[in-house]
Order: sequence, then C-alpha cells, then structure tokens
Amino acid sequence: MISVAEAEQRIVAALAPLPAETVALEQAAGRVLAADVRAVLDQPPAAVSAMDGYAVRAADSGPRKVIGAAPAGHPFAGHVGPGEAVRIFTGGVVPDGADAIAIQEDTRAEGDSVSFNEMPQAGRSIRPRGQDFRQGEVLAAAGRRLAPRDLALLAAGDIAKVAVRRRPLVAFAATGDELSRPGQKRRDGGITASSGYGLSPLIAGWGGVPRDLGILPDTSEAIASIAPLAGDADLIVTLGGASVGDHDLVRTIPGIALDFWKIAMRPGKPLIFGKLGATPLLGLPGNPVSSLVTALLFLRPAIATMLGTDTAQPLRRARLAAPLAANDSRQDYLRANTAWRDGECWVRANPRQDSAMLKIFAQSDALIIRAPNAPALEAGAPVDFIPLE
Amino acid sequence: MISVAEAEQRIVAALAPLPAETVALEQAAGRVLAADVRAVLDQPPAAVSAMDGYAVRAADSGPRKVIGAAPAGHPFAGHVGPGEAVRIFTGGVVPDGADAIAIQEDTRAEGDSVSFNEMPQAGRSIRPRGQDFRQGEVLAAAGRRLAPRDLALLAAGDIAKVAVRRRPLVAFAATGDELSRPGQKRRDGGITASSGYGLSPLIAGWGGVPRDLGILPDTSEAIASIAPLAGDADLIVTLGGASVGDHDLVRTIPGIALDFWKIAMRPGKPLIFGKLGATPLLGLPGNPVSSLVTALLFLRPAIATMLGTDTAQPLRRARLAAPLAANDSRQDYLRANTAWRDGECWVRANPRQDSAMLKIFAQSDALIIRAPNAPALEAGAPVDFIPLE
Repeated sequence: MISVAEAEQRIVAALAPLPAETVALEQAAGRVLAADVRAVLDQPPAAVSAMDGYAVRAADSGPRKVIGAAPAGHPFAGHVGPGEAVRIFTGGVVPDGADAIAIQEDTRAEGDSVSFNEMPQAGRSIRPRGQDFRQGEVLAAAGRRLAPRDLALLAAGDIAKVAVRRRPLVAFAATGDELSRPGQKRRDGGITASSGYGLSPLIAGWGGVPRDLGILPDTSEAIASIAPLAGDADLIVTLGGASVGDHDLVRTIPGIALDFWKIAMRPGKPLIFGKLGATPLLGLPGNPVSSLVTALLFLRPAIATMLGTDTAQPLRRARLAAPLAANDSRQDYLRANTAWRDGECWVRANPRQDSAMLKIFAQSDALIIRAPNAPALEAGAPVDFIPLE
Repeated sequence: MISVAEAEQRIVAALAPLPAETVALEQAAGRVLAADVRAVLDQPPAAVSAMDGYAVRAADSGPRKVIGAAPAGHPFAGHVGPGEAVRIFTGGVVPDGADAIAIQEDTRAEGDSVSFNEMPQAGRSIRPRGQDFRQGEVLAAAGRRLAPRDLALLAAGDIAKVAVRRRPLVAFAATGDELSRPGQKRRDGGITASSGYGLSPLIAGWGGVPRDLGILPDTSEAIASIAPLAGDADLIVTLGGASVGDHDLVRTIPGIALDFWKIAMRPGKPLIFGKLGATPLLGLPGNPVSSLVTALLFLRPAIATMLGTDTAQPLRRARLAAPLAANDSRQDYLRANTAWRDGECWVRANPRQDSAMLKIFAQSDALIIRAPNAPALEAGAPVDFIPLE
C-alpha cells in the first residue's frame, strides 16, 4: 500500500501543463493564466478628482473665478491660474495648474465665483496618476486562476485578451453490469449510475471540460471501447472496475500501461493510474462516495497540473464537536459537518461512515482528515478538514 | 443615511422567487430546487454485498458447496440452502436464504467447495435494502442550491429531471463619458470600463444570467435607452451615475420609480433601488471597488431571493494580524488578506483602502467588517469577515 501523498505526487509528476490559447477577457472567468499579464497603461492615466467640487490652486486664498468645467471624460483644455477654479466631477482629469480639490459640500457658488467654507489642501481628494498601478506592472501572474475581481482589474489595465491554459478534456465512463441511467428501466438487481453526475460538475468546477462516455458493461470488449470513445481526451477516468476481482476489467484494456495501487486510505483503496496509448488514465473506485472522494484527492490535482496552477488541497482547521476514536493504518476522510459557534468553527464527524451512504456525503460539508494510526481525540481538539463545496 | 442591513432588507422584501422550470439532472449543477426531491426507490433496492466473497448462511458450519454466482447486475435466481454458498461480488444482490458474506481474503476454494479461515457473521459485509435512503425520502429540499454531491445523490435516487427556479436575467450597463472598452481607443482623459467584467462572472456564479448592455454615455437619451435594451430582464443594474451630481442621470430615467439611498457604508454610499416600469433596478456606484463590494452586499441577496434560496452572507471569523483604528459612523468593508498560522486563521487589513484601488482589491481575499463606531482593536482580536472567492 502507498500513502495518499505519494499517490498524488506520482500522478502530478506524470502530467504537464497543456498549451496556451488566447481568449477574450469576457470568456476568461475561472481560466488559468499561461503568462503574466502586465498593465498597458497607468491607472488612473492622469490625476483625477475623487469627488465632485472645484479644482483650484491650494496656495491661493479667497474666492475663485470659475473658468470652465471638467466632467469625467471631458478634460478642461486650459490652465488654472492664480485666483481661478474649474468645476470638476468625480473621475474628471485635474486641470493643468490646479493642485487641490475643494469638495462640493464645502463650497458656495455665486455667478461665476466660488468661495470655500474650508480652504482646500494640496493633493486632497486627488487620485494621482498611476495610484492603482503603473504601466508594465504585473496585474496577475502566470498560474493564477482568474477570479471576477481579476477580470475587473485586467479590464482596468486595458487588457482585452489573455493567454490561458487550454482546459483539459476529461472523458469519464462508468463500468458495471448493474448500472442504468436515472429515469430509465433498471436492470434486475441493478442500481442507477450516480458517480458521474457528481463528477461532471466537479471536473467543470476544477477547470476541466467533462465528457460523459456513458455506462460500459463488464465485458472486455466494452471496456476496450474506452480508447476510441475517449478520442482526443487529455485524461480518461473510469468509475468502477478498478479492483482485482474477476469483473474488474479496467486493468485488462489492450494497450494499457499502468500502475495498480492500493492506497492506505478510506473511503477508496484500489486506484489505477497509467496510460492508455498516449492518454493518461485514472481508474477510480465504483462506489459513489469513494469515487467522489478519490476524485477530490487525485483528479483535482491532476487537472490543476494540466492547467499549470497550484495543486495544493485547501485545508481548514476546526475544533471537534464530538470525540474521535483512534484510527487504524489507513488515512481516513470522515464525512462531517461544520458549524460556527461564538465565532469558532466546530466540526462533527457523522457517526455513520459506510462508503455506500451517499446521502450522508451529500449532507456533509467537510472531510475530516485522520492520519494513519492517529490517536483518539477528545471533543474540542483541533482537526484539519477539507471543505466540500 | 440607512444601514447596510436595512438596505438589504428593503431589496429582499421587494423581490420574489421566479417561476420553476424543469431541467435534466445533467444540467442542474448550481441550480436551486423549486420543490423537495424525493427518492423514487430504496437505495440499495435490495440487500447487496459490500465485498467480493461468498454469500452463505451464518448458522451453518464447515465447508460449503458453491451452487452459483451473483455478480453485480446478475442476481442468483435460486435459494441458498444449508451447507450451500453463492460466489458474490461487490454490489451483487445477496441471494435468497443467505444472511452473511464470507469475504474473499478469508476463504479457500477447492473445486465446487469453499471453506473459511474465519466463520462469517450474520449481516457482516451486507448493505441492507434502503441503507442509504428509502423510497419517498426527501433527498434535497426546496431552496437548496445543487452541489455536485447532490446530483450524485439524486441520480442514485433514480431522479432524471428536477424542478428548479428559472435563473434571473440580470442586465447591466456602465454609464460614463469617460469609459471605453479594454483594447479599444481610449477617450481623451478617459479610462477603460472595468466593473462589468467583474460583475458578469459574479452574477453567473450567484446563479443569474448576466447580460452586458455595454457603456452608455452621460446623456439623458442614452440612459433612457436602458429600458428597451434590458428587454425581458428580471433585474437591471446600472454602474455609475447613481449619485446626485449634474452628470448622475440614472435617477432621471423616464418611468423610473425609485428610492435613492445614502447608505452608511464604505466603500460605496449612494445606492439606487426601485423600478423601471415593472422591472426592479439597482443602481450601484461607478467606482469599481465600490460597485463590486455593493454588488456582493446587495445584488447577491437580490439574486438569491429571486432563486428562492438563502440570502445570508457567509461570514467567517479570524484574528487580527495587525491592529485597527476606531471606525467612524459608516460600516466599513476593509480589503484584507487571510493567512493560516498554526491552524488558526489570521486576517490583515491592507493599509491602503482607497476605493479606486482595484489592484489591492483583486489581491485581497477577505473583507473585514467594521461596524459603525466600532472601537480600536489590538492585534489578536477576533473580527468577522466576508470571504472573497
């Protein structure tokens, strides 16, 4: 048996980032940058007013003569001389000669003259050129997965297109004579296929493109059809048939070169990783809880590697709401629920951990990680968990 | 001025859930259920083996005669009598008469006879019918936003279609003579429009359908075109032009019935909410940081209300990595970054909080909430924050 960490390392080591492609900024949400993106301009491109008011010279005193206006997008073409002021609006370019903004609420206008309740200070309410960022500055680095705020920032930097990693096409097939699709006639003694319905949106959320190859019966011929079905997939995932039983046929596909691993973990244990021709193949257990947990642990970093982004599992810590027994030699991922009390996060493992119990998994929001041979823990002890989205 | 909470309450109170529509389970990720979903079957539909091995009668002793096989999807049609066994595989239906599974590793087969290193116990390694859930049981309740695990669970419950709330169509327009699109020729003294590039994926992520109406210049005619442009939108959002200056024209749109609010918050302050004809309209500030923070605070719960799901803002708590000064009378949302140290979450407010600084916002992952007139806080004090995705 190998450890979870070693299995993840071997998978990550066997994969590489996919080529880059260029997409419009509007299409770039959630995509991973293939190269640093640098600002095309200073932001703001000129000193602008942060308020509605009057652009003046701070050194002057007394009322000023209003000689023009500078709304946003309509700079004042002239020069502000001694005793002069220009009406200005938020985002308007501070006119030449002015060095202060008298804000609207502190002014009294009369005809073409304006006077001040409070004398404006130099620099006050002015956003200097380049305050947010400078031309050439890196706004987002290679490997970054673009959040909505990043897109706003890149737009502000005058970026219309970005180079991102191509999204990996992940083809998956369920195997098993007992399976039918939901809503269709069930087989005698059969159940409905379920893992793939969870796997598909997980793949999409992790940045891949899911392709559902359907359900394959437990025959060598059907299993062998995975390669032509998968076509140009970047990664093939099988659900079920990954063990060593008479009906576990994934390891018998012609042209497969693979490692078969027993991983010291629960849920899940048998895992296949290798290549089918030139295409990496990940064989996950068929049990829905096991398949989705092992997808989180091994498929997520596989996709992240192909996207050239961080593979680290996000971990959180909370206090145990109920004690835990000592663990055996397998790393355990306990289905659990978090709750916030008095500003602290508490987590409680479900008392039932059967890996076939999908309802408990769906209602959980955390996987408590228990290291091999971890000692018993009292309520209140800190534990690490993986948040489930 | 009104509080953030009161503004949110007024917006939520003015909106209602949209009608339901039926979608295939494959299309339901992230959608919100319009009705409870109940299991069509018991899961598992019959008692099944949790392991590869032999189905036997626990009360018998000695070797057993193997009279058949029960792979998954191929139930054994006969009856297991005294001294008999049926070869069984994970997921195979436990045959009539058998009440225990002897697991493969503990057995020795010889011809059509099998003997056991360890006597199988009744019920061991059998998943009873309905162990996961029962026919008619609620698998996911109305108002739930469907996570990938929910989809797997519903598939296991033989659900092929679900009734979900129609996704609200949210039309948004940026206003301002100073704006151009990224990559296009900039106006003299102008900047690129940025808020909408962040807003669009936020709307999609919150469950809405974004429609970008583009950039409207600061003229009454252009602003009035919002109504025909928005068409059948469920909600109109304007970015900018929401204040009371000469160039803030949103409140002058013909046919608008609105509240203009000053909200005691920072960033953001002026907010418009009302109706344009029959369509709700939310007018956000033009400043990109202000517009995206106010979208999080007011547009997110507006969309959640139209989806019939929970509007509560997810809050987290962390310890301050650096002290904070006392707050003034406005509720403050400080751009901040979290870090985990020794299993504890710490959060540090950026020393620069200018609401025009989009780069700092993009690099933040949290908004620390400071209540009006909150006292100064030392490093180490607990504070609440909103996580930024």
